[in-house]
Amino acid sequence: MSKTQRIKGVLAPVVTPFDKDLNPDIARFIAHCKWLISQGSGLAAFGTNSEANSLSFNERIALLDSLLASGVDPSRMMPGTGCCALTDSVRLTEHAVKAGCAGVLMLPPFYYKGVSDEGLYRNYSEIIERVGDDRLRIYLYHIPPVAVVGITPKLVERLLKKYPTAIAGMKDSSGDWNNTKTMLNNFAKSGFDVFAGSESFLLANMQNGGAGCISATANVNPAAIDKLYREWQNPDAEAQQKALDIARNTFGKKYLMIAALKASIAHYSGDAQWATVRPPLLELTKEEMATLTAELKAIKFEMPGLKEAQTA
Amino acid sequence: MSKTQRIKGVLAPVVTPFDKDLNPDIARFIAHCKWLISQGSGLAAFGTNSEANSLSFNERIALLDSLLASGVDPSRMMPGTGCCALTDSVRLTEHAVKAGCAGVLMLPPFYYKGVSDEGLYRNYSEIIERVGDDRLRIYLYHIPPVAVVGITPKLVERLLKKYPTAIAGMKDSSGDWNNTKTMLNNFAKSGFDVFAGSESFLLANMQNGGAGCISATANVNPAAIDKLYREWQNPDAEAQQKALDIARNTFGKKYLMIAALKASIAHYSGDAQWATVRPPLLELTKEEMATLTAELKAIKFEMPGLKEAQTA
Repeated sequence: MSKTQRIKGVLAPVVTPFDKDLNPDIARFIAHCKWLISQGSGLAAFGTNSEANSLSFNERIALLDSLLASGVDPSRMMPGTGCCALTDSVRLTEHAVKAGCAGVLMLPPFYYKGVSDEGLYRNYSEIIERVGDDRLRIYLYHIPPVAVVGITPKLVERLLKKYPTAIAGMKDSSGDWNNTKTMLNNFAKSGFDVFAGSESFLLANMQNGGAGCISATANVNPAAIDKLYREWQNPDAEAQQKALDIARNTFGKKYLMIAALKASIAHYSGDAQWATVRPPLLELTKEEMATLTAELKAIKFEMPGLKEAQTA
Repeated sequence: MSKTQRIKGVLAPVVTPFDKDLNPDIARFIAHCKWLISQGSGLAAFGTNSEANSLSFNERIALLDSLLASGVDPSRMMPGTGCCALTDSVRLTEHAVKAGCAGVLMLPPFYYKGVSDEGLYRNYSEIIERVGDDRLRIYLYHIPPVAVVGITPKLVERLLKKYPTAIAGMKDSSGDWNNTKTMLNNFAKSGFDVFAGSESFLLANMQNGGAGCISATANVNPAAIDKLYREWQNPDAEAQQKALDIARNTFGKKYLMIAALKASIAHYSGDAQWATVRPPLLELTKEEMATLTAELKAIKFEMPGLKEAQTA
C-alpha cells in the first residue's frame, strides 16, 4: 500500500446483526456491508457502534473472514482491532493486515483508567513492533466519552515521530471540535489523516484538511454523507451539512444510537431481527420504535436499496 | 457445593508475573499462588490487580489450567470471569465451574458507559442461564473507579430474587464504606456474602456481617490480613486494623498499586523479573523502587517464606 492509496472519505462503524440466540448473524452482516459499499461508504467494522467490545475475539475473526470471503474489497475496510489485552490487539491487527485491509482503527486499552502517555505509547509501540509489517496503517481511536482513556496530541506526536508510516491517522470521537482542530493543525500537514467521529463535523473537518468521517449514522445515511464528502467545496455544502445534522439528531438525540440505527434498519428492510442488540445494551421499546419511525417519515428519510440488499 | 462450603475470608487478586517477552510466566504464577495459600489467602486470580484485562482469553485459560494441574485446591479459588463480551464471560465461567472453583468474580461488561440496570441484569442472566450449572456461585464485582460501570443495590436485589443460589455475593471496591454498609444491610442476612474490596474495611465489614475481603495487598501481606479476619472479635482487632492500614498505605498511597506489589515481590524474593507489568501500566522507576523498599524496611515489613516459595 502506498501513501496515495490511503483510505479516505466516509466509513461506517458497521452495526453487527444478531440472530435470535444473540449470535452474530453473518449473512445479514455481509448484506449490510455490501449495501454500505454500494452507497459509497467504507467499512469500519468492529467500532463502538458495531458492539465490537460485546464480541469475543473469535466472533470478530469469523465475521471478518466471512466478509473477506464474500468478495468485498479489503481496501475499503478499516476494522477495529484495539483491545484491552495487548496480545489480542496484536493478533487481530495481524489478521487484518495480512488480509489486505486498508488500515485498522485502534482503541487504547480501556480497562485501567488514569494511565500515562508512556504506558499508552508502549502499548501501541509493542503492537507495531510485534505485527512488524510495512503495510500496517493504524488509525488511533480517540473516544473518551466511552473508552474514558483518550489519546493526547503529545502521544500522537511521539508515535508519529517513531512510526511515521504505521501511524496513519485518527478517528476523533471526542465530540469536541477544538480537539479535532488541534489534531488537524498539529499533524494533518505531515500526512496524518484525521477522520471526524461524526458527520456533524464533516464539513469543518474537510475545510481544515481532514480526511473524512467515520460515523455511526453512515450505517443508515451513507450516500448523503458521502455526497457532502465529495462536494464539500460546492456552494450548497452548508445546506447539505444542515440536512445531515437533522437526520443524525433524529437518531441520536433521544435514543441510544446503536439501538436506533438497528431499529431503523429493521424498519426499512422489513427484517425485525435487525433490531436486536447484545446485553448490556437494550433495543428500543415498541413505543420508541414507533416514534422514531414517525420522526424519520416526517423528515422524509429513506434507505434506498436496503430492503433489496438484505433479501438478495 | 453446599451453602456451608462457601468460600470466605481473605483472597488475593493474584498478581500475574510476566517474562521478558511480556508473556504470562506460569511457573512464577504457581509459586506465588502456593505461597499465598500457605499464608492463609484464597486466590481471586484474574482480578483488577492481576492485570486480567491485559490478558487474552487463552492466556487466562492457560494460567488457570496450569494452576489447577499444579494441585492447588479449586475450592480456594474465585477467578475473575467477567468480560465485555457475554460469550467470553460464559466460556470463562463454565471453565471455572467445571474445574470446581468455589466461585467466580464477575465484572459487569465495562466498555459501554451509562448502561441501564436492565441491560446489566440481562448480561448476568444470560451468563447464568447459558452456564446452566447448579454449582455456579457468582460474586458481583463492583469497582466503579476502574470499570466505571457499577452494580447498584437494585440490580443485586433483582438478581438475588431470580437467582438466589447463583448470586452468592459481591466484592465492593467502591472505596465507599457507605456503599458496602448498604449491601450488608440489605442482603447479608439472606446469605449474600459481601467482601470488602480492601482490608481497610475488613474489621468494619466483619462487624457488620461481611464475609472477608478481596484485597490487592493480600498479595504481599496475606498472613496479617488473614489473622485479623480470624481474630476480628479479639480485643486487639483495632490495633491489627491500624497496622494493616499502615502497610497498605505504604504500597498504595504514593505508587501505582499493581507496580508496587510486583516491585515488593521482586525485592523480597530477589527475583527482579517480578517487577514487570504489561502496557498500558508502568513498572516503578528505580528511584520509586528504592523509596518503597526503604519505606517497607522502616515499618519492618516482611514477606516470610516468599523467597523459598519462588525458588522451590
